Amino acid sequence: MRNLFAAVCCLALARPALADEGMWTFDNFPSAQVKARYGFEPDAKWLDHTRLASARLAGGCSASFVSPNGLVLTNHHCAHSCIEQLSTAKRDFVAEGFLAKTEKDEVRCPEIELNQLVGIEDVTDRVLAATKGLAGGKAFNEAQRGEMARIEKQCATGDDVRCDVVTLYQGGRYHLYKYRRFQDVRLVAAPEFAIAFFGGDPDNFNFPRYDLDFSFLRVYENGKPAKTEHWFPMSPTGPKDSDLVFVSGHPGGTNRKVAMSELELERDARTPGRLLYLAELRGLLTEFGKSSAEHKRISSPSLFYIENSFKALQGRLAALNDAVFMTSKREAEAVFKKQVAADAALAAATGPAWDTIDAAMKRYRPILDRHMMLEGGRGFNSDLFGLARVLVRAGDELEKPNEQRLREYADARLPQLKQRVFSSAPIYDDLEVATLDFSLTVLRRTLGADDPLVKKVLGERSPDELARALVKGTKLKDVAVRKALFEGGRKALEASNDPFIVLARAVDAESRAVRTTYEEEVEAPVKRAHEAIAKADFALHGTSTYPDATFTLRLSYGQVAGWTEDDGRVVPPLTTIAGAFERATGRDPFKLPKSWLAARAQLDGKTSFDVATTNDIIGGNSGSPLVNAAGELVGLVFDGNIHSLAGDYGFDARKNRTVAVTSSALLETLDHVYGAKRLVSELRAPVATK
Amino acid sequence: MRNLFAAVCCLALARPALADEGMWTFDNFPSAQVKARYGFEPDAKWLDHTRLASARLAGGCSASFVSPNGLVLTNHHCAHSCIEQLSTAKRDFVAEGFLAKTEKDEVRCPEIELNQLVGIEDVTDRVLAATKGLAGGKAFNEAQRGEMARIEKQCATGDDVRCDVVTLYQGGRYHLYKYRRFQDVRLVAAPEFAIAFFGGDPDNFNFPRYDLDFSFLRVYENGKPAKTEHWFPMSPTGPKDSDLVFVSGHPGGTNRKVAMSELELERDARTPGRLLYLAELRGLLTEFGKSSAEHKRISSPSLFYIENSFKALQGRLAALNDAVFMTSKREAEAVFKKQVAADAALAAATGPAWDTIDAAMKRYRPILDRHMMLEGGRGFNSDLFGLARVLVRAGDELEKPNEQRLREYADARLPQLKQRVFSSAPIYDDLEVATLDFSLTVLRRTLGADDPLVKKVLGERSPDELARALVKGTKLKDVAVRKALFEGGRKALEASNDPFIVLARAVDAESRAVRTTYEEEVEAPVKRAHEAIAKADFALHGTSTYPDATFTLRLSYGQVAGWTEDDGRVVPPLTTIAGAFERATGRDPFKLPKSWLAARAQLDGKTSFDVATTNDIIGGNSGSPLVNAAGELVGLVFDGNIHSLAGDYGFDARKNRTVAVTSSALLETLDHVYGAKRLVSELRAPVATK
Repeated sequence: MRNLFAAVCCLALARPALADEGMWTFDNFPSAQVKARYGFEPDAKWLDHTRLASARLAGGCSASFVSPNGLVLTNHHCAHSCIEQLSTAKRDFVAEGFLAKTEKDEVRCPEIELNQLVGIEDVTDRVLAATKGLAGGKAFNEAQRGEMARIEKQCATGDDVRCDVVTLYQGGRYHLYKYRRFQDVRLVAAPEFAIAFFGGDPDNFNFPRYDLDFSFLRVYENGKPAKTEHWFPMSPTGPKDSDLVFVSGHPGGTNRKVAMSELELERDARTPGRLLYLAELRGLLTEFGKSSAEHKRISSPSLFYIENSFKALQGRLAALNDAVFMTSKREAEAVFKKQVAADAALAAATGPAWDTIDAAMKRYRPILDRHMMLEGGRGFNSDLFGLARVLVRAGDELEKPNEQRLREYADARLPQLKQRVFSSAPIYDDLEVATLDFSLTVLRRTLGADDPLVKKVLGERSPDELARALVKGTKLKDVAVRKALFEGGRKALEASNDPFIVLARAVDAESRAVRTTYEEEVEAPVKRAHEAIAKADFALHGTSTYPDATFTLRLSYGQVAGWTEDDGRVVPPLTTIAGAFERATGRDPFKLPKSWLAARAQLDGKTSFDVATTNDIIGGNSGSPLVNAAGELVGLVFDGNIHSLAGDYGFDARKNRTVAVTSSALLETLDHVYGAKRLVSELRAPVATK
Repeated sequence: MRNLFAAVCCLALARPALADEGMWTFDNFPSAQVKARYGFEPDAKWLDHTRLASARLAGGCSASFVSPNGLVLTNHHCAHSCIEQLSTAKRDFVAEGFLAKTEKDEVRCPEIELNQLVGIEDVTDRVLAATKGLAGGKAFNEAQRGEMARIEKQCATGDDVRCDVVTLYQGGRYHLYKYRRFQDVRLVAAPEFAIAFFGGDPDNFNFPRYDLDFSFLRVYENGKPAKTEHWFPMSPTGPKDSDLVFVSGHPGGTNRKVAMSELELERDARTPGRLLYLAELRGLLTEFGKSSAEHKRISSPSLFYIENSFKALQGRLAALNDAVFMTSKREAEAVFKKQVAADAALAAATGPAWDTIDAAMKRYRPILDRHMMLEGGRGFNSDLFGLARVLVRAGDELEKPNEQRLREYADARLPQLKQRVFSSAPIYDDLEVATLDFSLTVLRRTLGADDPLVKKVLGERSPDELARALVKGTKLKDVAVRKALFEGGRKALEASNDPFIVLARAVDAESRAVRTTYEEEVEAPVKRAHEAIAKADFALHGTSTYPDATFTLRLSYGQVAGWTEDDGRVVPPLTTIAGAFERATGRDPFKLPKSWLAARAQLDGKTSFDVATTNDIIGGNSGSPLVNAAGELVGLVFDGNIHSLAGDYGFDARKNRTVAVTSSALLETLDHVYGAKRLVSELRAPVATK
């Protein structure tokens, strides 16, 4: 860890980024740098094609098109909730896998939306003009939100177009990202969870690795597979050591350019608080899953998500608790501040930006717990409550002009909102009661039994009693009921005596209040301050740098490479299918599925399985295509190694690695384990159509 | 928090301690200071009597004698595990309460040992002579351990005498504490858990409070109630606002005088690690308890302990994450270092003490997780494993000379060891499997699936599979089997194929190895360095100060007082019995027991119930008598307020409060709720016998 952050320190000071660092936007990709290092220079055509063959799952993953007929490749863990939602107590596709024999067998996922980035427009001037002269606060917040809603609405010409104004460089730039939107996304194939996540939590973020973490989806338009002009052909040979490779995907978020006081709040309060919540819920759900096979099945997607988040957050906290790293960050900030101070014009323009951020963090700390409880989902951990809240707020918000609504209720965002509210995904009473009881207990524990809101919520009831009464009394599991309430608007909601609607209404004023305090007294001043800091950064260091990740499309370059651990252990970059059989113990999570045991003789054990590369990625990149210079898909990104967990705050090319399934493993196992002939022939179709 | 630590800062710099700060040893009590502040000067007789009327529960609590016939008062939560151990699925004394109608009905607690401090001797010279010239390391460690074992053995003339060499002032002094030891301790009375811990986790560490957290025990000698010459008569009126009060008890441990790097390790690694472990186990046990009434009953003592520890540790972590506090500590250390450096002789004698500690912490960090897993109980969380380990180690250690053994196997410590190994306390299979499965999972997660020890422990089995096999296959639940193995010694243990014995033997070498590394490369150099720092501290500031708490008898003085919160809310120092009825909701944890509801008309609602005082206490003080100048017991300490949680690192007289049950509430409810006539007449007996 020490060495990692020594490296980070230097990288942060020396610009542009060295090594293979960087999650680059497509409109500012350092092609010349790639040429200098690897001898290949991606041109505009290559970049456009790569961008258009890439995709995003709006819920938080990446993906790519792999045939001209709307076939999409992503991770199993990205489609995990869909696979679970399509399963029943009798037919568990998570455990058994799923394979649509014909097009008719492809089943629609209730909650997956897929986006293809078709255009980027710089709208910085428009956004800044709308907030000109306003200090970070209420007026700034409202003006910015209104202008963003206007821009997005003008752009979104139909439900099949998604438009997001994206904040880049912490406010240095505002870009309008325009997507082709697909909401009819169907499940085509997925392997058994046991091989998709072979090694389970112990092997997660580790390498060598043996995971077949894939799923195939297909986007439909008007009930037919969509035509997709841009797609990646799959390389039958897969990647080799030292190959130049690109990752085109959607890193969710990084914090490499935030202020020290933001990192400190993260270290001292936000991350520990989140970890403790997840730890307790993890223990609870693990035990919940032991009471019956069905409880295990219905809790597994949540538990999977929690375990993954937990490990990732622990890695981040370790970085924040590393004194050498924090010192290097502090010094880098001090150098930057000095540079600004030394230039009178810059100093005047930047103003007290860092002090503003420090003050905002001080303002945030005492309301952080309340904010997380009421608006961060911790106090009411329940799908039904979530739906009730969306309905209640939609009732209020949709009566307002577009520009004045909470951001997620703006006109351009309604398609997503409706997909969620009208979703046919199952909701399980027992699981709802368990997570609701837990979260209400945490709510009372955190805010105190005498907090007026807690008293209003619980009255004389225990959390368990209230949770049971809510789940038993609600009708919100019925999509038709939700639809009627949504369409009935505010009046229908105020008239409803559904217990979840009543609860969501009862806590809405207090919840909105803490959100407003956060947005106006923390978020807005920080944004304003970062706009100024980013301007100074551009003035001093130019714009040949990449912005922190924001769940928008980025391109990273690198090469296939293992690494050397501090203790001298050399980790090679590729594993083989034979290795999976060697690691298997016959017990979860090291238990190979029956299909694999049956197919062992047919499988070529020497086929490469998983691969490590030097690309700079982060959570959200799951499902990204790993592409070679020829534009072939050579792998499917599904993880980073353990050292990559500090990637939120910095990149160490010596040890930070991306982990992917090779295309060769995908083709070999589709063919010889799953007999997925229809799929294989679609994937192996001549590239001429490309 | 900010203000608290501003105060701490100044207190740390200005010596002797101001306000009511201090957990004073009885041989260095600041009677003159008390006289100056409160007009009463405790003399030698008063101090001796108070010391001898005080007691310690060796498992981690305080207590006092309250009659000449061995009657002992402590908290319900201090006897909670005994009350649970005496219960069955059919008769749950935790839920129902316990009252011995006659002496014959008093039942022996399987694992309670009670100690009465009869003598203190300074053995600093002897200990230092044994380690003279040795740098902190292996030789130092062995020499010190050997000398301590020799001193203790010479002192411990029988099983009824307990002798501990205690390290005070982080190594500035070594004292020999000699106790009268009672192992026949019987349960006399305890109320229902619902009123002992009314308000549960939400109200824990909070005030106003309404807890009747008491239990009565009795010490026996030769099958008869022991005669106890020194005891506290119980005040029928209880404490009043502003009364001078003393707490005589056994604070478990504080870290007010440790080095900055020790605090930082605590903040960055130790406390977060412990909290995360507890959080997950808490979630697990909460859900475990929901599967049946019996599961709830058998998991409740563990869960109670975990919830309490969790809240306490969270309070401590908040203090460590407070930048103002840490800065004040850092500055205080810098001032002290400067003072030392300015004095050539002192500087030479102190040497690089702080650097030594810093280096030891750096050495500790990479082995901390392994140390906690293998020696801190986290990797094998199981009563049966604990017993197996003690047996295996006893087999090896008892063959060695007394001075060369691990400290807990020295001759003077054997009575405790035997009490544990031969305990008749029940062990529950389901609970064993649950906690063992959990801890083995954490072991694998923490050390990695490829760690050789993890592979040796699990083989191809899953944690759950191994846990079930161990619990099913063992005979260690049978006390006779344990006795035979203990008496059979190493040979019998090596011949045993009991699966827990086999496991404990299999991991012993690796476990001892990490313990040795810790003791020789972390603990020993830190001790040596602190000896030097303490010497410098005495030279510069004198000895009129108190040492950090070490679970040895201390006396604290203070007064009955409420406090004012930062938001201006005034918290009065006393609650009433009527208040409990007002706070009750009829639902756990705010549900009054039936006995209270039935007795409501007989109770005087105006009787004071719980009380807050300014005494400086910490965990371990639970069960301490709250005594007035006249030597009457006016209360029974059971908690601190929320601000007291930072007391590990500093004391803020403005807000840090001790919380106790008043003697008036005890007498009122024994009389009118529990009809405990025998007990009341013993407590109200004329004081002439005193």
